[in-house]
Amino acid sequence: MARIYNFSAGPSTFPEPVLEQASRELPDWHAKGLSVLEMTHRGQDFVAIAQKAEADLRELLQIPVHYKVLFLQGGATTQFAAVPLNLLGSRGKAAYIHTGIWSEKAIREAEKYGEVDVVASSEAENFTVIPDLSGLKLDERTAYLHYTANETIGGLEFPFIPEAHGIPLVTDASSNILSRALDVNRFGLIYAGAQKNLGPAGITVVIVREDLLGKARPETPTILDYSIQAKHESMLNTPPTYSWYLLGLVLEWLKQQGGIAAIEARNIRKAQKLYDFIDASPFYISPIDPRYRSRMNVPFRLVNSTFEKTFIEEARSAGLINLEGHRSVGGLRASIYNAQPEAAVDALIAFLKSFEGRHVA
Amino acid sequence: MARIYNFSAGPSTFPEPVLEQASRELPDWHAKGLSVLEMTHRGQDFVAIAQKAEADLRELLQIPVHYKVLFLQGGATTQFAAVPLNLLGSRGKAAYIHTGIWSEKAIREAEKYGEVDVVASSEAENFTVIPDLSGLKLDERTAYLHYTANETIGGLEFPFIPEAHGIPLVTDASSNILSRALDVNRFGLIYAGAQKNLGPAGITVVIVREDLLGKARPETPTILDYSIQAKHESMLNTPPTYSWYLLGLVLEWLKQQGGIAAIEARNIRKAQKLYDFIDASPFYISPIDPRYRSRMNVPFRLVNSTFEKTFIEEARSAGLINLEGHRSVGGLRASIYNAQPEAAVDALIAFLKSFEGRHVA
Repeated sequence: MARIYNFSAGPSTFPEPVLEQASRELPDWHAKGLSVLEMTHRGQDFVAIAQKAEADLRELLQIPVHYKVLFLQGGATTQFAAVPLNLLGSRGKAAYIHTGIWSEKAIREAEKYGEVDVVASSEAENFTVIPDLSGLKLDERTAYLHYTANETIGGLEFPFIPEAHGIPLVTDASSNILSRALDVNRFGLIYAGAQKNLGPAGITVVIVREDLLGKARPETPTILDYSIQAKHESMLNTPPTYSWYLLGLVLEWLKQQGGIAAIEARNIRKAQKLYDFIDASPFYISPIDPRYRSRMNVPFRLVNSTFEKTFIEEARSAGLINLEGHRSVGGLRASIYNAQPEAAVDALIAFLKSFEGRHVA
Repeated sequence: MARIYNFSAGPSTFPEPVLEQASRELPDWHAKGLSVLEMTHRGQDFVAIAQKAEADLRELLQIPVHYKVLFLQGGATTQFAAVPLNLLGSRGKAAYIHTGIWSEKAIREAEKYGEVDVVASSEAENFTVIPDLSGLKLDERTAYLHYTANETIGGLEFPFIPEAHGIPLVTDASSNILSRALDVNRFGLIYAGAQKNLGPAGITVVIVREDLLGKARPETPTILDYSIQAKHESMLNTPPTYSWYLLGLVLEWLKQQGGIAAIEARNIRKAQKLYDFIDASPFYISPIDPRYRSRMNVPFRLVNSTFEKTFIEEARSAGLINLEGHRSVGGLRASIYNAQPEAAVDALIAFLKSFEGRHVA
């Protein structure tokens, strides 16, 4: 059937040309007589695919040479453990900014491995704002400061990079990496599961400043040790080769779109028109403070929430799927990552308008 | 170009019909208007794909209901840590059988988390035999007994299941799962990276007896905790959805082949004819004791090893690739997993014969 508009928070919409290329190349890559799925990760064809993906990511994000780029498995949830295991070291204390469900998961996991200071939180505001960081004080024993760049469930996004006062800054950028300009120099470490802006579920990117390597705690599983993975160029064991290849295709597509500046302009436009419509309507509500609204995940509610089920069903019939909010919070949510075409947002707005027209008293 | 014969040890050859189906379904799965790559793992379509894969694996291996089947990330190397973290518990001692490079890696990782007894080893025989286990004694504090069912690099395979005297038996079956009959009832836990007999790199199957759950040590990363993953049906976080789907296609193919009995008969035939040729030739050598030769990975050498480089090059020109031995040991190796067609083995034997004819003095 025709492509539908898929607003899933992840795994999420792929660029259509990437799907077509992947489909075409799947049985026989570049007339080599085999699939990328069948390539040994040690062979020159796959190594070229892997290196090209890294080079494109470095180019897109302007990653300085003193940062390693790792392609790992396990998603951000694995990094919730890997970050403290690798960075806590003997200082033994980590600082976290608490902005919602994902930052909380990161905090809980870090607490297994050392002392955690929650140095700022917007829990009292029900995570509708980024907490005020102007008076942020970090204990000198702090090994790193962690924040969640975009709360995928809550729809709360940092519009700025926090000042870390010389402490290594770590961010979970799973749901907004490559969607906006990012000065990598400000960070000690950036991690991101791929299934939102980078491609398929099953591969995770870690960008880490070299001076932070080599401090893993003794209980760190070898597979989670950044220095060992860096030494082996992410091939300590068999990497998720096909996901790495697909991620590379997505990066090539992003370069063809004009890189981050061009995609950011489009993302601003997409988000702005959706929030503008919601704000102007008496039928829909966005719970988040306009200063901190996510460009990637737009949670919203119906003023009359009894219509929600009908909304989901009618949207699905209209070819707009996965508009349910996360099961932990309910409501509605539209995820509009890089690969979400502007036409999908336009179609959603048209549907919002039509649904309102049909159901307003 | 035409399909080549790929003898890679992993990632490795896929069944050709699976590649064709995957290619066809990639842009639009079952006319749903989106790719499997784009499906939320919480949606009914993906859940059906995931459950079908589990049901097919349970059917193929006749997995009893009191075993959980987990679909995880990170390969066997991740399980080298996860097994002791989950099973060592307070008994604090593990027994390992040492048969080569992979068992050694598993042993080194387990030593991070507790006392390890190497209860049997064929190191003195240069890992050309399975060690004699007739007098095996296990300390009563032993939490589990681990062995590597097939040494992918060494080409050494257990033709029997070791007697564990009531201690939970754990095996790394990465390179021979589903290639031969296996009585799951004999095991506490079986794990296998997928990229040999199950499909793509990036997904790992763990089959674990329920009574072994719930004993993870406090330092276990949540993502590696089998009980938590079991409780979440392997969806604690976003699973590697597309790899799970591909694995399901491989299992369907295997069922169409007639299941394990049929594939085992073919595997025996493929391995036998290759070893028979090598044994009959004065030009090639198999280093492994015939009783313990792997049906999956056939390492061999040229009597005159100076021909090796030429061999690799001429084989490649003849459309036979990845015949190099593992970089840690050199020599030659042909991996002939389930999906390797018998015609590939026949072509290899024809090439061995022709190469010998051209290079024998």
